[in-house]
Amino acid sequence: MDADLINPFIHATKNVLGTMAFVQCRPGSPYLKKDDIATGDVTGIIGITGDANGTIAVTFDEGSILTIVSNMFGEKMTKLNHETSDAVGELVNMISGQARRELEELGRVFDAAIPSVVSGKNHSIVHYTDGPKIAIPFTIDGGAFTIEVCLET
Amino acid sequence: MDADLINPFIHATKNVLGTMAFVQCRPGSPYLKKDDIATGDVTGIIGITGDANGTIAVTFDEGSILTIVSNMFGEKMTKLNHETSDAVGELVNMISGQARRELEELGRVFDAAIPSVVSGKNHSIVHYTDGPKIAIPFTIDGGAFTIEVCLET
Repeated sequence: MDADLINPFIHATKNVLGTMAFVQCRPGSPYLKKDDIATGDVTGIIGITGDANGTIAVTFDEGSILTIVSNMFGEKMTKLNHETSDAVGELVNMISGQARRELEELGRVFDAAIPSVVSGKNHSIVHYTDGPKIAIPFTIDGGAFTIEVCLET
Repeated sequence: MDADLINPFIHATKNVLGTMAFVQCRPGSPYLKKDDIATGDVTGIIGITGDANGTIAVTFDEGSILTIVSNMFGEKMTKLNHETSDAVGELVNMISGQARRELEELGRVFDAAIPSVVSGKNHSIVHYTDGPKIAIPFTIDGGAFTIEVCLET
């Protein structure tokens, strides 16, 4: 696995969630996905092109995203709604933007499409690429989320 | 609404479904989306960059995608599974590819990211852009689906 590719996403995620939501997140060990499927309650997806074509997806369970948005909004959120989806779109955009800036410093230039946010209890997502699919699991107090980085090589 | 932008997607959809699944699809009137939300059972999403950044999403209800994949596979499919998601990824890739070729002839060059396919009964999707969101509804014998084209202007 290419640490130069993964680390910018870990740095960006910790930084964005720390700054926007005052949430400390703990990255687990990245792993290569075999089953192709991410399952969760809210997912932000953003397509990227350039140095390679791919997708970045961040899939939150309900506990993690409610904790994050409660901190962002300064009021306790107890269910998923349009506001939580909006927040996921914003977070994914920021994580993608910061990671792409760090990658650019390493000479890998990517463009990003616009983010889409999927909500629906226990939905699943498959990304269509022959390239490796790298998953980075994160935990926070209150839940868990996973970033998937899929890039055609 | 920009017909030069919409027509390539209508042509590509009719052509891809006619060729791959022997399905005649009937486009309805395109409309500008206001509520931001697409709801369905399986959605293929592909990010695009270049002339403008955006997203193309095709959201199928269960009836329409089961009819389409039954025809593609030559056997009656009665429920959504990994094979139907694979087929959606392939169809969205082909629709995006054919539409982009027609747009390129009009001088508008786009790159495409890799497709992601979301499944989950009655999920909803929001695309984050200030640009117009154009929906093109289609009906086939057996169901309905909608293509959304979102491009930042």
